[in-house]
Amino acid sequence: MPDTAPLIPVLAQIDTALPSALDRLLDLLRIPSISTDPAYAGDCTRAAEWLVKDLVSLGFDASVRPTSGHPMVVATDGEAAGGEGGGGEGGPHLLFYGHYDVQPVDPLNLWARDPFDPMIEETAKGRVIRGRGASDDKGQLMTFLEALRAWRAVHGALPCRLTIFLEGEEESGSPSLIPFMQDNARELGADLALICDTGLFQSRSPAIVTMLRGLMGEEVTITGPNKDLHSGMYGGLAINPIRVLSRILAGLHDDTGRVALNGFYDGVDDLPEEIAAQWQALSFDHATFLSDVGLSVPAGEDTATPLQMIWSRPTAEVNGIWGGYTGEGFKTVLPSKASAKVSFRLVGVQDPNAVREAFRAYVRAALPADCSVEFHAHGASSAGHMSVEHPAFEAVRAALADEWGTPAAYVGCGGSIPIAGYFKTYLGMDAMLVGFAKDDDAIHSPNEKYDVESFHKGIRSWARLLAKLV
Amino acid sequence: MPDTAPLIPVLAQIDTALPSALDRLLDLLRIPSISTDPAYAGDCTRAAEWLVKDLVSLGFDASVRPTSGHPMVVATDGEAAGGEGGGGEGGPHLLFYGHYDVQPVDPLNLWARDPFDPMIEETAKGRVIRGRGASDDKGQLMTFLEALRAWRAVHGALPCRLTIFLEGEEESGSPSLIPFMQDNARELGADLALICDTGLFQSRSPAIVTMLRGLMGEEVTITGPNKDLHSGMYGGLAINPIRVLSRILAGLHDDTGRVALNGFYDGVDDLPEEIAAQWQALSFDHATFLSDVGLSVPAGEDTATPLQMIWSRPTAEVNGIWGGYTGEGFKTVLPSKASAKVSFRLVGVQDPNAVREAFRAYVRAALPADCSVEFHAHGASSAGHMSVEHPAFEAVRAALADEWGTPAAYVGCGGSIPIAGYFKTYLGMDAMLVGFAKDDDAIHSPNEKYDVESFHKGIRSWARLLAKLV
Repeated sequence: MPDTAPLIPVLAQIDTALPSALDRLLDLLRIPSISTDPAYAGDCTRAAEWLVKDLVSLGFDASVRPTSGHPMVVATDGEAAGGEGGGGEGGPHLLFYGHYDVQPVDPLNLWARDPFDPMIEETAKGRVIRGRGASDDKGQLMTFLEALRAWRAVHGALPCRLTIFLEGEEESGSPSLIPFMQDNARELGADLALICDTGLFQSRSPAIVTMLRGLMGEEVTITGPNKDLHSGMYGGLAINPIRVLSRILAGLHDDTGRVALNGFYDGVDDLPEEIAAQWQALSFDHATFLSDVGLSVPAGEDTATPLQMIWSRPTAEVNGIWGGYTGEGFKTVLPSKASAKVSFRLVGVQDPNAVREAFRAYVRAALPADCSVEFHAHGASSAGHMSVEHPAFEAVRAALADEWGTPAAYVGCGGSIPIAGYFKTYLGMDAMLVGFAKDDDAIHSPNEKYDVESFHKGIRSWARLLAKLV
Repeated sequence: MPDTAPLIPVLAQIDTALPSALDRLLDLLRIPSISTDPAYAGDCTRAAEWLVKDLVSLGFDASVRPTSGHPMVVATDGEAAGGEGGGGEGGPHLLFYGHYDVQPVDPLNLWARDPFDPMIEETAKGRVIRGRGASDDKGQLMTFLEALRAWRAVHGALPCRLTIFLEGEEESGSPSLIPFMQDNARELGADLALICDTGLFQSRSPAIVTMLRGLMGEEVTITGPNKDLHSGMYGGLAINPIRVLSRILAGLHDDTGRVALNGFYDGVDDLPEEIAAQWQALSFDHATFLSDVGLSVPAGEDTATPLQMIWSRPTAEVNGIWGGYTGEGFKTVLPSKASAKVSFRLVGVQDPNAVREAFRAYVRAALPADCSVEFHAHGASSAGHMSVEHPAFEAVRAALADEWGTPAAYVGCGGSIPIAGYFKTYLGMDAMLVGFAKDDDAIHSPNEKYDVESFHKGIRSWARLLAKLV
């Protein structure tokens, strides 16, 4: 373990440079890089180009790498690592991953300002960076780049061998990711991947995620009549696809909150006792977690604890539904079609494709006469489990504790970050998930924000972590 | 009964003038008078002005009459009725009702052409007038005006005392109608109202509607979390309002197809035997009626016949549903809100307000913890029953039989045309519903059309009917 002398001036430089770091982040946030909507494809490329330019300024050999979807950004350290603070040739080779694409912004009317005209706001809870992507994931990925910038400003070089790998399709199922990793395995290979796309535990404790839920998405469209009908002329005689879809969705859960698909729980094991005990010790304050979003009662399975509901139990959720007339006023239409977007969070060794087939079989079996169904698959990833055997894990826990003044916890994550599993599968590399988002960041929602504290201490955390690892 | 000599030259004039009558209708169809969307308020007024101008050219004293919503058009015959074919002072005073507003046009992408750029199309089934409002109700109301135009061209005057009353809010619940009728009862009073907003029976037999369903509309919005959430972070723990709404809508019907609201069937009587027998004699071809829209199985109550399902049984239908992410791609949102537009077709003496309260009570009782609900009322009208005691009914049946070569039937109508009941309630006047729409006119749907045959024979039908009545 190297001594910590190189770290002190880097932390000071980070504190000094915070205003300019915030300016850079605001500049990146102004680019509406929504990956799921083809209308923003040009903006995704613009965001990638912005990052390449920034990485080149840090001494990287960086480029925009086309895919059949949105481009990747790959940067390798063109300078030999070294300088007085660097780990030099003997240090580890680290890969850093983040994503520059963001979620759509609707419903736009619920935003207090233009989601792509970000600003620093003073709030009762402190200063926040407001805008789409502020937390997920532009603000988070910039914590790492700013830590490198400060290191280089102080020591004249990057701290160790580094590869930066930034994706532009994380919010749209990452269709290009695996082919790109396979095609560029040699270039992307490193000793350890660092992924910054997660949060603090309960907005207070630094956390390393070791358990991630998988995700399988389906779009389902039920067709009844071959065109929209007048509900006066046909109502009562013709089948209504909204009624059919409602019945199907209502049947997805039983009365105890369990998902009612055949074989859904295959591969779902009870939480090991030692993990359950560790989570119990975290004293998760589910009352506050729920009351922050206007709720009070855990709505999952009767038999699960609140933390299990979001970390270790699988789910079925309807993420969107539409059909018939949805505009102003009233239209007495009996619609031809009704659609829903449904997703399943997966745990253990649940097979996403088996769950997809079980869902489709359930829908087909529930279809009444005269109705047909179309399915459209939207991505599939298995749950992930990080090995904490790698010695870096304990080093990083110590570095995070130094910055935040509280022990770092090994936690679960209800969201799906399949990249961690991909690094292991396709590049044979362990991955570590560290992030600084807070529960009230409103990621994927209107008025997304990232605390200036998350950003500032996040940058400092990476500097401490690099000092421990190199 | 006057002799029919005055009729012959009028029918000839109608045949000769058909091309110019079609031109006039196309002109009216170009005005996008969608009443339910405030963006088209100016176009509604434009349509009213167009009609006033046309009525003035027919010798009427006509004007656009402002309301708190879209304007009414009222025209009275400024000329004394007379001329050689006229009924003169001794004839009946008839009121004609139609509506110049039209339904919204979405989904616009399913239209083969601009809904407000109408044209005459040659089809395998004959010539049709294509465009929004071609059938409902601009094409229908113009049949009456064109009959008057021909009568006046031949005889130099209108056939009898006439009042024309055209509404611009029929497709949006007619909020101004009752106050306007009350405020203008003396001016609108007549011996009999003729309403042209219905169709031929099975697209072949002329029909007089004597039974109309009522309509009650509700918009319901379920709120769970106070903002949209990330389904990874909260999924499994937070209540999902789409899931709640789906369960509520799925519970609206029981397994036999009956509506499962408390007291819903209060005021619903079994069909009288003589009416049931009359309907049986109509030999309703429900297989063709359904197959025209891609269906085969009656989807209503187990115990009802197909004709009863659309004419004499009440219904609950979901006319629209929306919530969460409905755009391109996928967004793993757990939404704050989910909404639906629900309507109930009413029969017998069902009380629309009692049904509304029963619906609201059902929804409130079905709400789980942490969910709230908002309701928005969208109109309410009771079912209507025409008395056929008035001697005009038999005269009109005869006139229609002369034109179409087949007996006119007394039929039901699944749609809601509350105006008929209002004429009785507020003006003490019987009403007769005669129309020429066909089942495949696609009213309220993309690619609405009106057969040139409906338009042409409709005009001729009114001329015959006027000759019988004056």
